[in-house]
Amino acid sequence: MTQQQEKQQLHGSITENRVNGIDLETLKGTVQAIADDPELGKCRFRATNAWYGGTDNRTTVSEFYGAKQDIPHKQQFVIRADEPSILAGDDEGANPVEYLLSALAACVTTSMVAHAAVRGIHIDSLESELEGDIDINGYLGLSKSTPKGYTDIRIRFKVRTDADNMEQLKELSSFSPVLNTLTQGTNVSIEIEGV
Amino acid sequence: MTQQQEKQQLHGSITENRVNGIDLETLKGTVQAIADDPELGKCRFRATNAWYGGTDNRTTVSEFYGAKQDIPHKQQFVIRADEPSILAGDDEGANPVEYLLSALAACVTTSMVAHAAVRGIHIDSLESELEGDIDINGYLGLSKSTPKGYTDIRIRFKVRTDADNMEQLKELSSFSPVLNTLTQGTNVSIEIEGV
Repeated sequence: MTQQQEKQQLHGSITENRVNGIDLETLKGTVQAIADDPELGKCRFRATNAWYGGTDNRTTVSEFYGAKQDIPHKQQFVIRADEPSILAGDDEGANPVEYLLSALAACVTTSMVAHAAVRGIHIDSLESELEGDIDINGYLGLSKSTPKGYTDIRIRFKVRTDADNMEQLKELSSFSPVLNTLTQGTNVSIEIEGV
Repeated sequence: MTQQQEKQQLHGSITENRVNGIDLETLKGTVQAIADDPELGKCRFRATNAWYGGTDNRTTVSEFYGAKQDIPHKQQFVIRADEPSILAGDDEGANPVEYLLSALAACVTTSMVAHAAVRGIHIDSLESELEGDIDINGYLGLSKSTPKGYTDIRIRFKVRTDADNMEQLKELSSFSPVLNTLTQGTNVSIEIEGV
């Protein structure tokens, strides 16, 4: 198999049960089960984090709750965050606001690809570039009127697909949970207890 | 050196220039430079993402803009996202909404530790557990009235520090850029172009 053929098979492969590499039988099974019993769709995603000193900390993701049960991942994922030297770190990992961009990129990509697959829209390749603006005068407490978080994030997708699909793909991006969390906001409660 | 001493040195070490492992000279230098010239605080964080087929995609973080210049990370960070099998993936990485939790955990942790260091508040250890609610009836398009993103996220920190510091640490968490992005929301623009 040539590299090109492998890539084709990896990305936008079309087999009996797969579109865009998505296993439609599995996905449609999940959708049907939740349609029959909406309680199955209530998910709780979980993570733990440990501080390693300075700006170095690591998040572990092991399991989540969905379909009325705790579901273990097949492996533990450890996500290391740090800060660049200008922010007093050792630059041993992407920083938290960069992980936020990665979450957004991954989520909009997966949302488009999966929703396209269900609708029979074939995508051959998909890449994106993201850029987000934070004025750290807010974070550093130098300006009380400056927002502390991102004010604007821009995503530019480059997609290889039939030109007719472009407009619909853009509409499908709106299903992304991370995109909706960022644009709509969410409640976050914080408790701190001593040990 | 005993393991306990090593841990002490790693986490909440107190030396002439470091509190909580944070290099205060570097951090205060950055703060002073931005206080003198607020334009230096305008940052643009960047990421690129490539789709690898199905629900597998990878984000690369290489550099960011700050202090009026592009600043390369000392290494490239590649962040792989996937979905568990129930969402038609191969479970080769944390999923996007789990990366969002990791971004939040890392950011609130770093914000508390660094702001505490500047104020001379010593922290010996810090861990957290996060849980966030998403009803994927929204994402799957099964219910138009169900929010597609997180509705509530809970963080529980366990901290070893003087009991007197607890209330102030909670206040310092409010500096976190990811926390503020999630609670306040942000603008996200999406462009899609063919290749």
